[in-house]
Amino acid sequence: MRKIIIGVMGPGAGASKRDKENALELGKLIAQKEWVLLNGGRREGVMNAASKGAKEAGGLTVGIIPTDNNHTISEAVDIAIITGMGSARNNINVLSSDVVIACGIGAGTASEIALALKAKKRVILLNDNLESQAFFQNLGKDHVFIASSPQEAVEIASKIVG
Amino acid sequence: MRKIIIGVMGPGAGASKRDKENALELGKLIAQKEWVLLNGGRREGVMNAASKGAKEAGGLTVGIIPTDNNHTISEAVDIAIITGMGSARNNINVLSSDVVIACGIGAGTASEIALALKAKKRVILLNDNLESQAFFQNLGKDHVFIASSPQEAVEIASKIVG
Amino acid sequence: MRKIIIGVMGPGAGASKRDKENALELGKLIAQKEWVLLNGGRREGVMNAASKGAKEAGGLTVGIIPTDNNHTISEAVDIAIITGMGSARNNINVLSSDVVIACGIGAGTASEIALALKAKKRVILLNDNLESQAFFQNLGKDHVFIASSPQEAVEIASKIVG
Amino acid sequence: MRKIIIGVMGPGAGASKRDKENALELGKLIAQKEWVLLNGGRREGVMNAASKGAKEAGGLTVGIIPTDNNHTISEAVDIAIITGMGSARNNINVLSSDVVIACGIGAGTASEIALALKAKKRVILLNDNLESQAFFQNLGKDHVFIASSPQEAVEIASKIVG
Repeated sequence: MRKIIIGVMGPGAGASKRDKENALELGKLIAQKEWVLLNGGRREGVMNAASKGAKEAGGLTVGIIPTDNNHTISEAVDIAIITGMGSARNNINVLSSDVVIACGIGAGTASEIALALKAKKRVILLNDNLESQAFFQNLGKDHVFIASSPQEAVEIASKIVG
Repeated sequence: MRKIIIGVMGPGAGASKRDKENALELGKLIAQKEWVLLNGGRREGVMNAASKGAKEAGGLTVGIIPTDNNHTISEAVDIAIITGMGSARNNINVLSSDVVIACGIGAGTASEIALALKAKKRVILLNDNLESQAFFQNLGKDHVFIASSPQEAVEIASKIVG
Repeated sequence: MRKIIIGVMGPGAGASKRDKENALELGKLIAQKEWVLLNGGRREGVMNAASKGAKEAGGLTVGIIPTDNNHTISEAVDIAIITGMGSARNNINVLSSDVVIACGIGAGTASEIALALKAKKRVILLNDNLESQAFFQNLGKDHVFIASSPQEAVEIASKIVG
Repeated sequence: MRKIIIGVMGPGAGASKRDKENALELGKLIAQKEWVLLNGGRREGVMNAASKGAKEAGGLTVGIIPTDNNHTISEAVDIAIITGMGSARNNINVLSSDVVIACGIGAGTASEIALALKAKKRVILLNDNLESQAFFQNLGKDHVFIASSPQEAVEIASKIVG
């Protein structure tokens, strides 16, 4: 039977220390809920930290890989879906997620938030970037939620998938 | 020899009257420059208006179609590229464009702006949405330009493709 | 740590009784090896039978879904990757598989065999279609294997992933 | 108004001298019919030869590029659609073509023939590979045609697009 999948999207090389700490904690909390963690699968930034957090708590991790090879895959990914599609795979990330949590912000993450809203998915923003909050709340209305901590993000997700 | 391609992205059903007027004018100006117009190809909103404008001025139009059939294609599209990929085709729209002009704003358009910035493309915003301008300028820095009219957008594009 | 993924590709509505029996048995044997089963995820034909077999033996199943919704997903799929890309997702199926087993033949399955060979993957054919065997052995040389039973297919796969 | 698009698919580096001569001639004949030529867009093999032939006869050429950059594009491509999707773009090639002509054979070409048949497109085979002819005629029945020359291939295409 289909498992619940929570997508955690966020910057790779451009992730801040805070973003990575939040991602690690998100990964743990998602695993504790027995949800599957899905992300972009690469060995850096928010993706890598979230996967590590989930594995520390005994969870299952899925990485949707942009390249057509396995050189960049995080060691904390259990199931690597290799797309070879570059950023076009961002749409798969959001379509496959029951809820999308955006941890930090960057161009790739912004595309995932927008694609999620286009697909009528609910998106939770966890970042300090006020422009992103203003823009996406205006764009997505009641499909956009603001969280101030990983705990709050997971509580909101819990109500949505509930 | 490869032709210069200018992408005009914008809302479909959600386009405002102003967006569609701007798109029609953008299409005309792009055709007068002898550039190819590329857009999402459907028979509504900014896509349809831009294609019509380009055809009125004798230009060539390319539509990157999200569905796997031809039921939704604008009659003003000369070359229909049928992807069957839904919104994942948004990444093709921006990778194929030498410059991206975003005419109006919506979730799909926001994903195209973000994907374009991810791919290091230059993006020109033509809209009244101040939140989008603040967010994308902050995100894309010197790769983002604000235009107040179709004429200004095309002048900026002209300098970029130079 | 990355799990071994075995892809089982085969016809949907066009699958024969024999194809579905073979697929059910392949799913069981793959699960018994503690490999992850990956397939096209829909609720019919070889996909559905292979997923059911894997679940009966306590395995983990991944479905790469062609549509952008969840209406067609087999109940025996644990992890649904929703692509919305139609048959373009066939390339993801094969890139993500350590070994591809083609159980039966049809146009979609033939595209997966060919895409797998293009990506230098090893492919095991389990079918009665002599033309397909002649064509793909000629095309893929030492990357193509012929199996006469699910057991033999899994033995060959076992040597490959070694 | 939508132009008729004929796709010519065939091997890149693996193309034979005969395949490239046939492709050059196909390109010319397609341009003389005032159809648009579509192919994989790279600067080698059948793709390059077909595009050159079409340009010699004053035609319009579209290349669907697998990479996310423009380093490999044939100089004879007018309109480059940059997908960054690798072989997943093969499905776009066939969906966008009113008729598919397969000139020569290889793993990529075989995937395009199979994807075309999956999408209920008509496919014309122009090659000396008897196994491919036997397999695909068996698979695609009345959607598969065998041509013994570029002229015959274009005559068959002409009847199909009517």
